[in-house]
Amino acid sequence: MPDPRFFRCVASFTLQQIAELSGSKIASGCDPDFLLEDIAPLDTATERNLSFLDNVKYKEHFAKTRAGACFVSLKYVDIAPKGLQLLISEEPYKAYALAAQAFYPEENPKSKISKNSHVHTSAKIAEGCIIEAGAVIADGVELGKGCWVEANAVISQNVIIGNYCRIGANATVSHSIISDYVRLYPGARIGQDGFGFAIDNNGHIKVPQLGRVIIESHVEIGANTTIDRGAGSDTVIGQGTWIDNLVQIAHNVKIGKGCVIVAQVGISGSVVIEDFVVFAGQSAIAGHLTVGSGAKIGAQSGVMRDVPSGETQIGTPSMPAKQFMRQVAALKRLVKR
Amino acid sequence: MPDPRFFRCVASFTLQQIAELSGSKIASGCDPDFLLEDIAPLDTATERNLSFLDNVKYKEHFAKTRAGACFVSLKYVDIAPKGLQLLISEEPYKAYALAAQAFYPEENPKSKISKNSHVHTSAKIAEGCIIEAGAVIADGVELGKGCWVEANAVISQNVIIGNYCRIGANATVSHSIISDYVRLYPGARIGQDGFGFAIDNNGHIKVPQLGRVIIESHVEIGANTTIDRGAGSDTVIGQGTWIDNLVQIAHNVKIGKGCVIVAQVGISGSVVIEDFVVFAGQSAIAGHLTVGSGAKIGAQSGVMRDVPSGETQIGTPSMPAKQFMRQVAALKRLVKR
Amino acid sequence: MPDPRFFRCVASFTLQQIAELSGSKIASGCDPDFLLEDIAPLDTATERNLSFLDNVKYKEHFAKTRAGACFVSLKYVDIAPKGLQLLISEEPYKAYALAAQAFYPEENPKSKISKNSHVHTSAKIAEGCIIEAGAVIADGVELGKGCWVEANAVISQNVIIGNYCRIGANATVSHSIISDYVRLYPGARIGQDGFGFAIDNNGHIKVPQLGRVIIESHVEIGANTTIDRGAGSDTVIGQGTWIDNLVQIAHNVKIGKGCVIVAQVGISGSVVIEDFVVFAGQSAIAGHLTVGSGAKIGAQSGVMRDVPSGETQIGTPSMPAKQFMRQVAALKRLVKR
Repeated sequence: MPDPRFFRCVASFTLQQIAELSGSKIASGCDPDFLLEDIAPLDTATERNLSFLDNVKYKEHFAKTRAGACFVSLKYVDIAPKGLQLLISEEPYKAYALAAQAFYPEENPKSKISKNSHVHTSAKIAEGCIIEAGAVIADGVELGKGCWVEANAVISQNVIIGNYCRIGANATVSHSIISDYVRLYPGARIGQDGFGFAIDNNGHIKVPQLGRVIIESHVEIGANTTIDRGAGSDTVIGQGTWIDNLVQIAHNVKIGKGCVIVAQVGISGSVVIEDFVVFAGQSAIAGHLTVGSGAKIGAQSGVMRDVPSGETQIGTPSMPAKQFMRQVAALKRLVKR
Repeated sequence: MPDPRFFRCVASFTLQQIAELSGSKIASGCDPDFLLEDIAPLDTATERNLSFLDNVKYKEHFAKTRAGACFVSLKYVDIAPKGLQLLISEEPYKAYALAAQAFYPEENPKSKISKNSHVHTSAKIAEGCIIEAGAVIADGVELGKGCWVEANAVISQNVIIGNYCRIGANATVSHSIISDYVRLYPGARIGQDGFGFAIDNNGHIKVPQLGRVIIESHVEIGANTTIDRGAGSDTVIGQGTWIDNLVQIAHNVKIGKGCVIVAQVGISGSVVIEDFVVFAGQSAIAGHLTVGSGAKIGAQSGVMRDVPSGETQIGTPSMPAKQFMRQVAALKRLVKR
Repeated sequence: MPDPRFFRCVASFTLQQIAELSGSKIASGCDPDFLLEDIAPLDTATERNLSFLDNVKYKEHFAKTRAGACFVSLKYVDIAPKGLQLLISEEPYKAYALAAQAFYPEENPKSKISKNSHVHTSAKIAEGCIIEAGAVIADGVELGKGCWVEANAVISQNVIIGNYCRIGANATVSHSIISDYVRLYPGARIGQDGFGFAIDNNGHIKVPQLGRVIIESHVEIGANTTIDRGAGSDTVIGQGTWIDNLVQIAHNVKIGKGCVIVAQVGISGSVVIEDFVVFAGQSAIAGHLTVGSGAKIGAQSGVMRDVPSGETQIGTPSMPAKQFMRQVAALKRLVKR
């Protein structure tokens, strides 16, 4: 059960209501009026709790759970403990996400501009915003409706931020145009100079970084992630792309829609990433390359050539996944001989 | 000699006193009353300085040092310069640590709550705390005795922090329960949402992150390291675990006691790390795996299966160290042919 | 064209003036009096814009550009579109950098100490400084002429900073001596304790970290990069070295002049890096090693031995680049058989 000091459960639901809001199906023999008061993981759930089985690793937790109800795919129904109310879904994690959002909707604190924040008189702050203590909002900034700027965040001159964005504590934003429903986690650094210089015997010569960062709607950017502004053209993060913690995105990078960039990934300058691409943790890509839509890059991989659409690559330098697996196996054999 | 602008040497000690507080032994022929006034590295130490030889790489510095006294293991006594006072220890680095703590104990500035900090009236601040300018402490926060919250740090709603903790400048903490003697370095991000979403054609669906971060006593967390709170269960960092800079720890991770996590390591969601495990720099581990107690993961390695207790693994995918070394050698031979 | 909300173009120049300030040569048949009003990338430039071709990947953009003038090396003159004014340079990127600096010189806002900053009365602030809201400057700090301390940055006790430095928003600096023209990007962490402890059954024993960080002139340090102070001797960053985002530099590291350290690199404790060394993205080096001057370390490489001057190494463990390429090819063949 989530700690009530940090999370507020706002409602109870019947099994029927949960089935409807989550797009899942009540298994035959289950009780549509069964009341669910909270959510919990399989191993700690109790009688009035809703849980889920998604990763097969937790099959045994499922077989022994004391939860009242559970999202599960059809193939595990047989091992359900007696009396467990079953909600059948082929995407149990998605169904759980929707249910959890119903029990625990995003908080919306009351609009308030802290008297301890520092908002320049020329900044335009739309209605419904929260600006916490120590936040600094410079001259010329425009903030849309219902934005939440957390404590000690810094938004620099002339930055434009859309509606319903949340800027995490101690994050910084400059030289950026940000759309609606964007969320920056604490310590994210958006819009600083890229790493641009010409090498010279008498000291590197700085190349002025004259582009911006453009962030489309529904983007999430993780804690302490850094996104440099463009050098000439802009750095662009496409709609609905999610970026994890400690990721580096260099100048001029274009990322498409719905991509997933896992923690500690490094994207070099001027890379183009099309839609729905996944970069797993600690992977990286050299500059000026293109990754086709739907491609997947394995963890810790190093991409050194363009990646075709839909291809899964692993390794450094990265190669199609099958080839990588074969190389791993070949090396193993080589040593065994 | 440490720069007195930043460090204050509080006392002098005789060789005898140093031997006692460090658990080392005065070599025969040395003078127990020899006075030591400071500590210094082998190559810059002078007559009244105490130094140490731990890494064999610095053997030549030892042979030529002008230090007054030195911790050293028995096997290097023969190459000591004439007149050097020797303190014999088989753990010279540990002996040095204890001596250095005696010369330079941790500073304890006077308790003071800056009038430029922003402490909510409902926060409970125990006696002896220091709260610096710009620090923000939200409603419901509890801070134990003798805590030190540095400038511009942010502690969010209802966070509980034990006694004698230090929260670094510009660090942020939310959704967390922290025990005693915990230290967060500047820019650490503790308790933000994990990277949790279900993939959907119409945009990723956020999974509410409803767990906490639990940090046990005597934990150190490096600069700009990020620790996400649990999604369902909590993220837990065990007693006496040390975490370096720029490390990523994802939601639901459980780390045991006395572990060492070196810089830029990435620990994926729901990983279980038992006690006294070491992850060397830039290594990483995939989600939902277990690392047995006492295991060691080499630098830049990528763990893709459970690791047995006590095993040392290297490589991507990681394998027992011996096997990795054999593969490296085999590849070398393959090319030479 | 750079967004005038964020960048201010201060002047127009003739082709002749640009040739002079950039050290390039007007191609025969071009018009020295041709007026250039702005700069832009090849694909978006218009008639009065100056552009450049450096990376051969963008050759086609060059062939179709509508720019008024362009820096280009001699070998691409033949494919220039008709009417394009050509500035010949064998270092077109450097020429462009100098021109861009002329159109868009670094901003120099008016000196101002915000009444919402927190400057200790004992700090010495030289003339011409900017100190923004929320910045905290502790007792004993000395700040040279023309420094710019951005919002919510924290400079701790007795730190000394030279002339014309810029300390980014939310950055922190302690235990450091910084020379002139140094720039720290947002969220950089300079001078905190290194990761120093002796392992002990009853809990790791902290080794007091009693050195400093010394930063020589003209150094740039990227966003969220962490540089720990020395344990005994100092951590030193040499003149004109550029460090990208999210880099980790451990205690006692000595980096020479003019080095380039790309994003997410990890430099372990007590490493010595001589002058003009390059570490590409996500590469790392084990402790106590030396990298000779002019050496280049490939992306994601892991250096486990000293690197000779001038050598290019790749791989984990790193090896001469040629050998690495041969191993990659041999592995490929091994699988094809």
